[in-house]
Amino acid sequence: MTAVSSALGVALPIAQAPMAGGPDTPALAAAASNAGALGSIGCGYLSPAQIEARAAEVRQLTARPFAINLFVRRDEPDDPVAEAHVLPVLRPFRRELGLPDDPAPAPQLPAFEAQLAAVLRIQPAVFSFTFGIVTREHVAALHARSITIIGTATTADEADALAEVGVDAICAQGAEAGGHRGTFLGRFEDALIGTLALVPQLVRRTKLPVIAAGGIMDGRAIRAALELGASAVQLGTAFMTCPEAGTAMAHREALAHAHQTVVTRAFSGRCARAIRNRMTDAFETVAAAAFPQQQRLTAQLRAAASSSGRTDLMQMWAGQGAPLVRAMPAAELVQTLVREAGL
Amino acid sequence: MTAVSSALGVALPIAQAPMAGGPDTPALAAAASNAGALGSIGCGYLSPAQIEARAAEVRQLTARPFAINLFVRRDEPDDPVAEAHVLPVLRPFRRELGLPDDPAPAPQLPAFEAQLAAVLRIQPAVFSFTFGIVTREHVAALHARSITIIGTATTADEADALAEVGVDAICAQGAEAGGHRGTFLGRFEDALIGTLALVPQLVRRTKLPVIAAGGIMDGRAIRAALELGASAVQLGTAFMTCPEAGTAMAHREALAHAHQTVVTRAFSGRCARAIRNRMTDAFETVAAAAFPQQQRLTAQLRAAASSSGRTDLMQMWAGQGAPLVRAMPAAELVQTLVREAGL
Repeated sequence: MTAVSSALGVALPIAQAPMAGGPDTPALAAAASNAGALGSIGCGYLSPAQIEARAAEVRQLTARPFAINLFVRRDEPDDPVAEAHVLPVLRPFRRELGLPDDPAPAPQLPAFEAQLAAVLRIQPAVFSFTFGIVTREHVAALHARSITIIGTATTADEADALAEVGVDAICAQGAEAGGHRGTFLGRFEDALIGTLALVPQLVRRTKLPVIAAGGIMDGRAIRAALELGASAVQLGTAFMTCPEAGTAMAHREALAHAHQTVVTRAFSGRCARAIRNRMTDAFETVAAAAFPQQQRLTAQLRAAASSSGRTDLMQMWAGQGAPLVRAMPAAELVQTLVREAGL
Repeated sequence: MTAVSSALGVALPIAQAPMAGGPDTPALAAAASNAGALGSIGCGYLSPAQIEARAAEVRQLTARPFAINLFVRRDEPDDPVAEAHVLPVLRPFRRELGLPDDPAPAPQLPAFEAQLAAVLRIQPAVFSFTFGIVTREHVAALHARSITIIGTATTADEADALAEVGVDAICAQGAEAGGHRGTFLGRFEDALIGTLALVPQLVRRTKLPVIAAGGIMDGRAIRAALELGASAVQLGTAFMTCPEAGTAMAHREALAHAHQTVVTRAFSGRCARAIRNRMTDAFETVAAAAFPQQQRLTAQLRAAASSSGRTDLMQMWAGQGAPLVRAMPAAELVQTLVREAGL
């Protein structure tokens, strides 16, 4: 048990990454936690009531510590000009999926402050966040409820900012990581630093424990991350093919062959690593709307593509280690990782 | 000594990366080789006579094995349309540097076949290549002279192609690596895979020894790469601040603060990782000419910027581990790496 797993209250220096919007489930998080890792539920898209319901589901399945993850957002108002550029790109795809030409207006995302208030009520062992940075007041409120706080950094500057605000640990999100980038200072393009290069820089920069994320799929990579100075590791893609995950079937199958991933704004408006397909190609030449406007504009299309298994149009988050996925129950995956890593 | 260092005839599983165009020198390669690592000279821009002279210089300084590296190129003819787009971007920079508005025509690069013929005459212990892939006939000619061959792969498909053609080892160039990308199948954008994700995939894919490159700056990262299954490591940026290197002074100083690197075509026309500056920014919106046309169009500007220490316009290759550079003689660096890695 490393210092950080002790701080998180878990036996193993392994976290199952939050994967909002489908792949993570209460069953997955609970299975990871029951196996001695830190399970996580990504609640960035959920209302306060939904977050409380989801956390209650986890608690029905495990008494162990788990993490709730939120997006620290500052949404821009919707931009009608962006919408006018995006909708014509989506129309031919929508027609292929049998959808009307234009989407009905999708509801706004719940306010971050209300989501955080739900987390404070739930009082999970761990709160982790991405997209931005919390305030000192948020940190004080979380600490007052004995909640351990993990912030996400993609650069050394972001690690400094997180340390300054008082988080307890830093998730170092390497460029390999699947899903949304956590970058909150500077350009996304300048913050795509490989895990092998990022972790030693953050370890040198901060006294806080560093949790390595991005490209870690097996025990070898866990040992490598610990050699780099990480105190723990976080795996997302590796858990996406567990039966407990909510990953769509077509997405699971695509992961094993995901040799081409791209960092795209196509699905949500915010840079995220996904398997390359016609949707990501379409938004290489057309600018997406900002997050979460793009996310709302594409919501119906993404749902329809997913339910009909259309991998050419689906949102398929994937880390660069995806070809090494293994389909096994979360508990077995955790045990396999422990054995391989010699933990 | 791992199998690969034995195959390369060196005591340590460490190679000093070839860094054509300035940073590598016969003194650097010889110092690395004398310290038990594999020194390399990047000769991609040199004529056959220059390659022979350079190799002779190395041999005056060491009797140990070293590597000669070439670009396996298939140059496109110059494109006057591209030139018409590029020159207006360069003009204001040229004026700032006191150069005439447009460059005099620069000579073409020497033909690869002639360069390879020089390598065959020189008969170094190791021949490494990047940018493309050699033929079976090249491999046979090199092997007939007992030259060990290292090819560069940035994806699993490229590793397959290299194994198929008969190379002896594969350099896995992770996205973190500084300088030119070795990608030769598919798009550069799809082949920016972090070292931590790339190495295990190549190790699984090929029976050949894999040499990990990209983001490796210290003994921790060497241990991490070996944990990932690499048989050896290759470090470029880490050697750029050795006194034996030919790195420009302003470039050396910039490396320690190089938190923002970009993969750019600005300097040569081929994707390469460099410290972000006004030149890389200028070619984010304007398409560069192809390699080596862009390289020739920018030659005078790059030389002038470098000799006047203008870091805003210089070509400053850098890997993403650059902030961890240490200025010490190559022998001391190799010894430090060995000690840190516990080799």
